[in-house]
Amino acid sequence: MLLAYDGSLFHGWQVQDHCITVQAKLEEALRTVTQLPVKVYGSGRTDAGVHALNQVAHCDLPRKVDLHELQRSLNALAAPGIAVKALVEVPPHFHARHSAIGKIYRYHIFNRAYPPVFARHHCWWIRAPLDAGAMGRAAAHFIGTHDFSAFRAKECAAATPVRTLHRIDFAEGEWADSTLRIEMEGSGFLQHMARIVSGTLAAVGRGRCAPEEIPNILASRERSRAAMTAPGRGLHLVRVHYDEEAFPQLRMLNSGACEPDSGME
Amino acid sequence: MLLAYDGSLFHGWQVQDHCITVQAKLEEALRTVTQLPVKVYGSGRTDAGVHALNQVAHCDLPRKVDLHELQRSLNALAAPGIAVKALVEVPPHFHARHSAIGKIYRYHIFNRAYPPVFARHHCWWIRAPLDAGAMGRAAAHFIGTHDFSAFRAKECAAATPVRTLHRIDFAEGEWADSTLRIEMEGSGFLQHMARIVSGTLAAVGRGRCAPEEIPNILASRERSRAAMTAPGRGLHLVRVHYDEEAFPQLRMLNSGACEPDSGME
Repeated sequence: MLLAYDGSLFHGWQVQDHCITVQAKLEEALRTVTQLPVKVYGSGRTDAGVHALNQVAHCDLPRKVDLHELQRSLNALAAPGIAVKALVEVPPHFHARHSAIGKIYRYHIFNRAYPPVFARHHCWWIRAPLDAGAMGRAAAHFIGTHDFSAFRAKECAAATPVRTLHRIDFAEGEWADSTLRIEMEGSGFLQHMARIVSGTLAAVGRGRCAPEEIPNILASRERSRAAMTAPGRGLHLVRVHYDEEAFPQLRMLNSGACEPDSGME
Repeated sequence: MLLAYDGSLFHGWQVQDHCITVQAKLEEALRTVTQLPVKVYGSGRTDAGVHALNQVAHCDLPRKVDLHELQRSLNALAAPGIAVKALVEVPPHFHARHSAIGKIYRYHIFNRAYPPVFARHHCWWIRAPLDAGAMGRAAAHFIGTHDFSAFRAKECAAATPVRTLHRIDFAEGEWADSTLRIEMEGSGFLQHMARIVSGTLAAVGRGRCAPEEIPNILASRERSRAAMTAPGRGLHLVRVHYDEEAFPQLRMLNSGACEPDSGME
């Protein structure tokens, strides 16, 4: 299933006691429809406050159902704040997390003296003027395959801290919801990695860190050398990549996975 | 003052008993700052649910104040949901409503089988596929100077129903918040006019009204011939025009009035 959700309404993706999470809401909706417990597997957990434009998840249905009817029911039960944009049948060996080969995240910063209105739950408001040029030079240092130990949460349980970042793009513009966007495409992201990279780029933008320091911070492998973790509310999961040769069914899913904002292209 | 506000948090612009309105919130903030009653005049009233990206309002301040400090105080007091984007001193004969010579409104429709997530308070969700081509042909009939009696609220108190619509643009796209936008620029708008025009275009898009019927509906001058008033939540006041020769101070204001979404241009 291809999902969009407004992270401001949920305590993140993963099921937790006494909290409304995206996974819990979907499992509850599936239980209502099928009258049986159904577990939902996401391509990855998103933190509290983090949004998804095109999250991918899978589940094993206990019986044959009409996918159009199921989509309609889930959308009625999971609203507001979650939309099932598309549903497609996949082979049994597909796994939303294990089969994922890459992801795109976008971080929104609102860099104005006045507060954001429409996107107050969807961006990081930084009053002080940011030097986008310095941020762009700093970003270039992240591209490639690196040990991202300095850019992951202490509690990150990933087996290896090595990840490949294919690109980081900056866009400055006058959207209603942000004035600076950082788009990252990578083979995978460690816990908090996209947010710590964004927080460190913001520190560069504020002149607290020189762009040339990034390679040293990466080499140090020390979390304390990087800057603060940027707030979850500015982060958007834009797309999850799969091998479409191996899973041609997903082409249909991706054709429904519109880019969220043509302003970026 | 140049203002943005999220209409979903207010009962419209105008002060009302027992309701939180934008005007009331601003007057309360100004009273807190100046310790005196201050009346705020907008370029026009926006209905409940209607948003503003660049509303213009004026007030007479009882004493000299530093505009930067005032902006900061107002933004602290009026948040969340209202932002004072810019403040500028104007000559005494300027009046936000009487001096206005034109406006731009934008109507957002989300035309997908699944519900909007991020913009659920900022668009009209229409499930049934809309024929954008027919809507574009219908829109062209509105351009020019017409008696808009069929497209105004029964309670509209305007002295004349004649208005000039300079342009209506359509844009189809993949924004997070809408898939179809109707942008209207005119000399002025009667009560509910932008919403009834949008509602009628949606009826054309659904095949309930032929594009060629628009001239007949205009000529009839009968409200009952036009379609439903589109919901307020889809409407955005994008810009208010003034004669910048007569009020050169406003150029500064407009330089702060960024276009809300570069996707439109």
